Amino acid sequence: MPHTILTGDRATGPLHLGHYVGSLKQRVELQDHNQQYVLIADLQGLTDNGLNPSKVSKNILNVLSDYLAVGIDPDKTTICLQSALPALAELTMYYANLVTVSRLERNPTVKAEIASKQFGQSIPAGFLTYPISQAADITAFRADSVPVGDDQLPMIEQTNEIVRKVNRVAGKDILVECAPRLSNVARLPGADGKSKMSKSLGNALTLGATEDEIRATVKMMYTDPTHLRVSDPGKIEGNVVFTYLDAFHPDTELVQGLKTHYMRGGLGDNKVKSILEECLQEMLRPIRERRSRFLADKAMLIDILSRGTAEGVVKTNSVLYDVKQAFGLNLLK
Amino acid sequence: MPHTILTGDRATGPLHLGHYVGSLKQRVELQDHNQQYVLIADLQGLTDNGLNPSKVSKNILNVLSDYLAVGIDPDKTTICLQSALPALAELTMYYANLVTVSRLERNPTVKAEIASKQFGQSIPAGFLTYPISQAADITAFRADSVPVGDDQLPMIEQTNEIVRKVNRVAGKDILVECAPRLSNVARLPGADGKSKMSKSLGNALTLGATEDEIRATVKMMYTDPTHLRVSDPGKIEGNVVFTYLDAFHPDTELVQGLKTHYMRGGLGDNKVKSILEECLQEMLRPIRERRSRFLADKAMLIDILSRGTAEGVVKTNSVLYDVKQAFGLNLLK
Repeated sequence: MPHTILTGDRATGPLHLGHYVGSLKQRVELQDHNQQYVLIADLQGLTDNGLNPSKVSKNILNVLSDYLAVGIDPDKTTICLQSALPALAELTMYYANLVTVSRLERNPTVKAEIASKQFGQSIPAGFLTYPISQAADITAFRADSVPVGDDQLPMIEQTNEIVRKVNRVAGKDILVECAPRLSNVARLPGADGKSKMSKSLGNALTLGATEDEIRATVKMMYTDPTHLRVSDPGKIEGNVVFTYLDAFHPDTELVQGLKTHYMRGGLGDNKVKSILEECLQEMLRPIRERRSRFLADKAMLIDILSRGTAEGVVKTNSVLYDVKQAFGLNLLK
Repeated sequence: MPHTILTGDRATGPLHLGHYVGSLKQRVELQDHNQQYVLIADLQGLTDNGLNPSKVSKNILNVLSDYLAVGIDPDKTTICLQSALPALAELTMYYANLVTVSRLERNPTVKAEIASKQFGQSIPAGFLTYPISQAADITAFRADSVPVGDDQLPMIEQTNEIVRKVNRVAGKDILVECAPRLSNVARLPGADGKSKMSKSLGNALTLGATEDEIRATVKMMYTDPTHLRVSDPGKIEGNVVFTYLDAFHPDTELVQGLKTHYMRGGLGDNKVKSILEECLQEMLRPIRERRSRFLADKAMLIDILSRGTAEGVVKTNSVLYDVKQAFGLNLLK
């Protein structure tokens, strides 16, 4: 049965291979048989960039180009700009009265993010409350299915708590509960193997990476530090080059052969890296080219985003109308 | 020099004599020589009524009728419905990223209100963050003058902090700092003399109070508990009947004479109360009558509120435009 799906990305940087493996590829598949909305989340990007909004604004069209370059089709997927949907802010205001501060402070995802961002005593109010804003996003599109990593499950829970409260106040089900759509894809590690791929950690390959960047990144990629001579047996586990081969190389039998050889000894890192590099160069070349063609046509990008957003305005305003109706606040037309 | 003034009331109940003395009377004077905006604050009313929105929605037209009944003139004062101005919610979202959680928790006004409302561990997020929403209200109208009691000064301070941060990000002064307009009128005590007049404390005389309600309220009004016999000398200080005579009786010489007599002894509470009752009956009769005439014409009320709100939409959208422009977020038109 087709679902209404909401996904999106904070517009704080161009997207990278981690996004590609973790979500973009799935969206390209999902768009054929579902009603899919994708939100370029500039408002959410601002929650930890309040004093530096240009970091967000300058990345909006980058993210859109990334979407189009990997095959998200604006005729199948509705792509919206979050800040251009006033209903999201309005719903956030209403929902904020239904969630306690201590509930927000207990949210495991937010707690972990606050710790990792080292806000110290300076947590922006908008950051603490962003699960409320996410609930507004999800419910405003009547999404019943939300692709998430398992670290995002508390967000779904928070959303459904709000849905139930609003429906209780309304005396009927005006909002839709959502279910997480958990990916079975493991999170792609960064090139350094230390943590997930992340632009701010400098271990990422963006979708617009140049040939040289791809070459340099593969060259410095983390392998097996105990694999000193070609003849030594090597380890696959934690070896980023093999993780990437698994994730991206189309010939799984070839990859299996390489693994066996590597573990046995006699296969050098340089050889494996050159196979990975060739595969990444081939995969990223058309994406990079499409991406730069899109970026060169700003008017077309704006047009695509305007059309998707206009559709989103209608959709989200109708949910806002229902919530205001339930609250008795549609006094003026 | 004329100012741009923003005031308003939470739409959580009909207005009472405390509002009349503390703010409504001044608004009637201010509207002649200033650009005055008055906000019926339904969104703010919801911050501690999230699960009971009808308490707010059913009072919107009550408050509007109160305004009109006391002489706030929609041709001079722009009366807007807060929830019908989407720019306020949007600005709140942007400002929330510029204010820390600990800054909100330190706000003395919010701290005092949280204590008095006995939320315990269940402080709604929207309540903690309402100073941000107030800053959105004030700045969205470019108000440079905000009538407040001295307990509300921290709100003005919070607003101006946000103004300075936004202007710093913008690199120019797109928002206007505001100054408090402190009233020199003492807060009107409730009929029980225990605390300020408040509908929820049951010690209030609403502007629509019936003759019987006025009579009953004056009858139970707190005087001087040591003034047992008419011949005893009585105290004026803390004697609510005299406080009200000071506030409402047009003949100050008469009131001064009553005070002297009362302190000397020989003037009974009943006599003083009957003078106060007559004065209140006379003052409230025309207000009550106008109020009920307005309430009977709902279409006219809606029309007045729609016109004021439409003007408010234009005004607040223009400020939102400037803020989004400064943040680089006016990509789509």
